[in-house]
Amino acid sequence: MSELDRHLMVVIGGTGDLMRRKLLPAMRRLTEEGVLREKTVILAAGRRTTFDDESYRKWAHEALEDAGLPHDAQGSGWCERCLHYQALGEQTPEDFQRLKQRIAELEREHNLPGNRVFYMATPPGAFIDMTEMLGEAGLNEAPGWTRIVVEKPFGHDLASAQELNERVHRNFSEHQIYRIDHYLGKETVQNLLTFRFANTLFDSVWNRDRIASVEITVAEDIGVEERGEFYDSVGALRDMVQNHLTQLLTITAMEHPVEFEADAIRDEKVKVLRSMAPMDPSQVIFGQYTAGEVDGEPVRGYLDEKGVTVGSRTPTFVALRGYVQNWRWQGVPFVLRTGKRLAEKRTQIVISFRCPVLSLFQRHPHATVRANSLVITLQPDEGFDLCFEVKAPRDPLRLHTQSLSFRYDEAFEELPEAYETLLVDIVEGDQTLFVRGDEVEESWRLYAPLLQAEQRVYPYAAGTMGPGEANRILVPRGEACPI
Amino acid sequence: MSELDRHLMVVIGGTGDLMRRKLLPAMRRLTEEGVLREKTVILAAGRRTTFDDESYRKWAHEALEDAGLPHDAQGSGWCERCLHYQALGEQTPEDFQRLKQRIAELEREHNLPGNRVFYMATPPGAFIDMTEMLGEAGLNEAPGWTRIVVEKPFGHDLASAQELNERVHRNFSEHQIYRIDHYLGKETVQNLLTFRFANTLFDSVWNRDRIASVEITVAEDIGVEERGEFYDSVGALRDMVQNHLTQLLTITAMEHPVEFEADAIRDEKVKVLRSMAPMDPSQVIFGQYTAGEVDGEPVRGYLDEKGVTVGSRTPTFVALRGYVQNWRWQGVPFVLRTGKRLAEKRTQIVISFRCPVLSLFQRHPHATVRANSLVITLQPDEGFDLCFEVKAPRDPLRLHTQSLSFRYDEAFEELPEAYETLLVDIVEGDQTLFVRGDEVEESWRLYAPLLQAEQRVYPYAAGTMGPGEANRILVPRGEACPI
Repeated sequence: MSELDRHLMVVIGGTGDLMRRKLLPAMRRLTEEGVLREKTVILAAGRRTTFDDESYRKWAHEALEDAGLPHDAQGSGWCERCLHYQALGEQTPEDFQRLKQRIAELEREHNLPGNRVFYMATPPGAFIDMTEMLGEAGLNEAPGWTRIVVEKPFGHDLASAQELNERVHRNFSEHQIYRIDHYLGKETVQNLLTFRFANTLFDSVWNRDRIASVEITVAEDIGVEERGEFYDSVGALRDMVQNHLTQLLTITAMEHPVEFEADAIRDEKVKVLRSMAPMDPSQVIFGQYTAGEVDGEPVRGYLDEKGVTVGSRTPTFVALRGYVQNWRWQGVPFVLRTGKRLAEKRTQIVISFRCPVLSLFQRHPHATVRANSLVITLQPDEGFDLCFEVKAPRDPLRLHTQSLSFRYDEAFEELPEAYETLLVDIVEGDQTLFVRGDEVEESWRLYAPLLQAEQRVYPYAAGTMGPGEANRILVPRGEACPI
Repeated sequence: MSELDRHLMVVIGGTGDLMRRKLLPAMRRLTEEGVLREKTVILAAGRRTTFDDESYRKWAHEALEDAGLPHDAQGSGWCERCLHYQALGEQTPEDFQRLKQRIAELEREHNLPGNRVFYMATPPGAFIDMTEMLGEAGLNEAPGWTRIVVEKPFGHDLASAQELNERVHRNFSEHQIYRIDHYLGKETVQNLLTFRFANTLFDSVWNRDRIASVEITVAEDIGVEERGEFYDSVGALRDMVQNHLTQLLTITAMEHPVEFEADAIRDEKVKVLRSMAPMDPSQVIFGQYTAGEVDGEPVRGYLDEKGVTVGSRTPTFVALRGYVQNWRWQGVPFVLRTGKRLAEKRTQIVISFRCPVLSLFQRHPHATVRANSLVITLQPDEGFDLCFEVKAPRDPLRLHTQSLSFRYDEAFEELPEAYETLLVDIVEGDQTLFVRGDEVEESWRLYAPLLQAEQRVYPYAAGTMGPGEANRILVPRGEACPI
């Protein structure tokens, strides 16, 4: 890791949920670990006019305690040295001028060279107005570098994403924009690149000759929680598939980049999206959860959730089958699946290899051979499992599927939270793990036919793995090879 | 497993060490597990004329207790039902006639259909006279099947192996002969076939395009023990390399057999031996242990072992580099290494894969890439380890070598002893795990140049991994890829 620049971190929406639950704990831990120590000064900016530095620090103390970071002398010292608050009130141009003044003051006071991050921890869609206010206030430039960080959702379809890109580019150039997809901050996702490109064994079988299918699952056991109203306006395709699952797909499928560098990697990810066959609505199954049981507790159905429209047809489950039409992947189904209120919380990429060319054991009735698979788990226990065939002891012709297993938490002491990784990358100016503008647009373009189509939504009981109709799309697991 | 034939198991050398330590315990366990229950009647035949059934059973009780098999009611019942003794005295034709009579009596008494195993648990080289005596007595035929089992060594060079084959074939045909190499009875060795041929992932990289080298090690920490005199007349090449290590080599390197059947598999093993380049004496390092320390205990050097000739130049260590000159393996070194009084007891096959085509991380000075390897361990803990590169947490460009691990004893409750596996195969008539006559001869032919050459023998201290000169032959492990 290179030496980090000293900078001011301005968090717009600094009293919000993301700041409280993710950003503050991440920044505090990065300081304790020395990564951000003496490097960062934080200015939280929010609507609340009742807060000043002192009361904000008190609020932050509580947030950190909730996150399991005790309010000790070290923590107090950190809050007092690093944390400041600036009210944005009604977000008028005058408010942004006051923000600009405060930034200048803090930079003088802390002797900072004028590097600035504007982290938009704002409600969905609100960020675009903010970037324009920043631009009008002249805060899109600084003596050092200026970067803006944007959370999802980035648009709700192709047209809106194009409009957002066009508007944000009026004040900021693409190399200043860090579009967050927190899945990209996860160690296992980043490691997919190493796994593929630094290991001859896997690199050499990563193609249609050896791989039969790829299945990417992001299963959640929670429902819509407090987000019913927002969720009802987007649904599973927009909320999960267009961003997180598509990121996992492009990283799994991409070609070798020219070098290990942000734009080289993102060029290859965009190429995957451009290679995708148009989505076929007959290869997509939507679902919506009804009342059921999760972990032994009865839970209500989606239509009874707070904030959900009466008779809503918003899908809480999607399974779809897509194809990357290029030389590496032609004919290999990529199945994406996600849903709320499923039987378990699990994020996995399953690479199913082809069956052996021929079964050597074909004349022996009990010697069933199953295809190899590689299971890359992102949640709950990050790691890899390579499922392979061994013979059962004593009987040479009875095969068992066993696995070679690797778990990150056994190999490494502590894994950083996704937000820690991403914050460091922002300060370093490394855009590898952030989504480029054209990538967002290509992803929306891909799902456009599904967003427009009249869609049937199958009910499924909470606590199951989705509607039975999805089995038509999914890849059967652990089936015997035909030969 | 098919239904086993009822049979008489005649063990010639029935009061010897192999019977006491391996065969009796294996037969008792197989009976307890039900595999041989009601199937086998045992007739131990030996020189001792003082034994009768009763005193032999007492001897057997003690042997079983030494092997950790308690002398309980079940064990006593087994001894009384199954075990019989017949003295062979001076092994005259009359003694063999008496053996023949006894066999007939036991078959009547136990109502056996006339299937017979003659297990030659005799001292090295003595078996051939026995087969001739059996032939003369007409015991090479029976109402059912007749099989003979032969332990190593099978000859001490090509000429002697050819002579043994010629003599044994006078009375028994090849399909009746079971040449034991107890390494073939080990689960991991048998599983190598499954591992290679039932797993697309490994099958598809099992060639010179992906594999850089294969290293097979059989390291022993013990010295020559009570076998000094015998060992001094053979040495490591004859005692270990020509049989055990060569078996591991042929199973690792063989092509896909036509089917999973004894002769189809042995045909392919013979083809590997016939494809080997002539052994180059400059690619062979011999060693002999001197005094040293093993497990913290001082141990004497080879020349001070009981039974060893003064000034002996018998090697107790060999490392050699061979090449399988066929389309699959041309140019890939196969390194064999074995020795006594080494630092540890370990039997391993290490498959080293080639480096990645190109390092994507080449512009980053800390991102060293190491080649993948697959470590197949036969002793002490049977299993597989696949060593691969993962990125270190936090730093995306620092790679660590980690491993995916599989251990048999975690996956399966209990692994059978090699002799249990082999005994069942003999009774089943499955010759897959036994060495065919032409295989033995090809193996001796391969090592002939080394047996005849004037050889330098390097000393090495007991408790090390052999003479330093061997490093020239061995494959370096864990080195950084050059690019």
